Amino acid sequence: MLRLYDYAASANCYKARLLLAQLERDFERVPIDIFDGDTLTPEFARLNPRREVPVLELDDGRVLVESNAILWYLGAGTPFLPAEPAAQAEVVRWLIYEQSDVMPMIGGLRFRLITCRIEPGGEEAHRRTTGAYAALALLDEHLSSHEFLAAGRYTVADSSVYAYSHVAGQAGIDTSAYPAFRAWLGRVEAQPGFVNDLEPYPANASVLAGRSIYG
Amino acid sequence: MLRLYDYAASANCYKARLLLAQLERDFERVPIDIFDGDTLTPEFARLNPRREVPVLELDDGRVLVESNAILWYLGAGTPFLPAEPAAQAEVVRWLIYEQSDVMPMIGGLRFRLITCRIEPGGEEAHRRTTGAYAALALLDEHLSSHEFLAAGRYTVADSSVYAYSHVAGQAGIDTSAYPAFRAWLGRVEAQPGFVNDLEPYPANASVLAGRSIYG
Repeated sequence: MLRLYDYAASANCYKARLLLAQLERDFERVPIDIFDGDTLTPEFARLNPRREVPVLELDDGRVLVESNAILWYLGAGTPFLPAEPAAQAEVVRWLIYEQSDVMPMIGGLRFRLITCRIEPGGEEAHRRTTGAYAALALLDEHLSSHEFLAAGRYTVADSSVYAYSHVAGQAGIDTSAYPAFRAWLGRVEAQPGFVNDLEPYPANASVLAGRSIYG
Repeated sequence: MLRLYDYAASANCYKARLLLAQLERDFERVPIDIFDGDTLTPEFARLNPRREVPVLELDDGRVLVESNAILWYLGAGTPFLPAEPAAQAEVVRWLIYEQSDVMPMIGGLRFRLITCRIEPGGEEAHRRTTGAYAALALLDEHLSSHEFLAAGRYTVADSSVYAYSHVAGQAGIDTSAYPAFRAWLGRVEAQPGFVNDLEPYPANASVLAGRSIYG
């Protein structure tokens, strides 16, 4: 059976859970507490030298890392990933944008503010806030003329970008100027099988510094 | 015929030229001078709202943006991109890592130093230098037990990561502590059809600020 090494409050992990639910696939969930050192063990480093969740272990023992690569594997051959090369290239484009811009800016800002790793008015918060609004502006422009991000239909690109962008408000980001983006959030949430089981960070996350890899 | 909007000194563009050469595919090359405002025109914004090269225009008029998405499209159905889902997921993983870490750290540092946009000893140079060495360390560790990055053979993941990592020295990065990485550079360069036509930035690039989107 598929085995997902998973942290409930990680939106990168939530992506995988969302697609698994939409595909109605069984899997074994292995909880990994990133604030309790679970990613800092030698055993976890053998699974993923980057010490990040999620990790997906396949039936044959192969291991996949990187949330969007896991979405690709799970989505292949299903309606969530088109087969045509140009359509696949569009999906690749948005999976990359999610990790190069959406996740580090919106997700990175949210994580660091909630866990008190950076000051709300400081230089790093400013850099990531600026990046977060730039990412939302680009998404909003694209979604003003596209129902979904890629290939003219709901794909793993949408579930990936949804994961961190829908909690932008928790990073102090005001999305009211991006109506096409907000309408798209609603279209994602209206998909068959949609679930949202993303948990909040623990209330004492800010005092657990040093027990996670995230600075 | 395929049309590539291309800047000769961009390693993101070089990736596409390298794969097109390896595939022996004909294409029309449209030179785009990022230092002469060519990406700042309304016409270019219609091609790519992010105002970045490369852009690939297909025979049917469809437009693909994002260098690694272009590699995916060109590689599909060829020996440069495996068909098996888990192998494809590995390629996706490295294409993402290239854009989230290798390109912004090594490529971003190189561009900003050569064009005098940042100070060699300043805070941003320090941040990107640290990130560049972290990226090289991760590549070196992976390549110490893998001949190529993904799927057990040469794929578009290798050509993508090669593009910026092989010019790390131009960003002041010393790669001598990463022998597995350096040996892999040699294996990439030994591939059939390998070309390296990446040009240097223009000597006066530093005085052309304001005529490109890159800060």
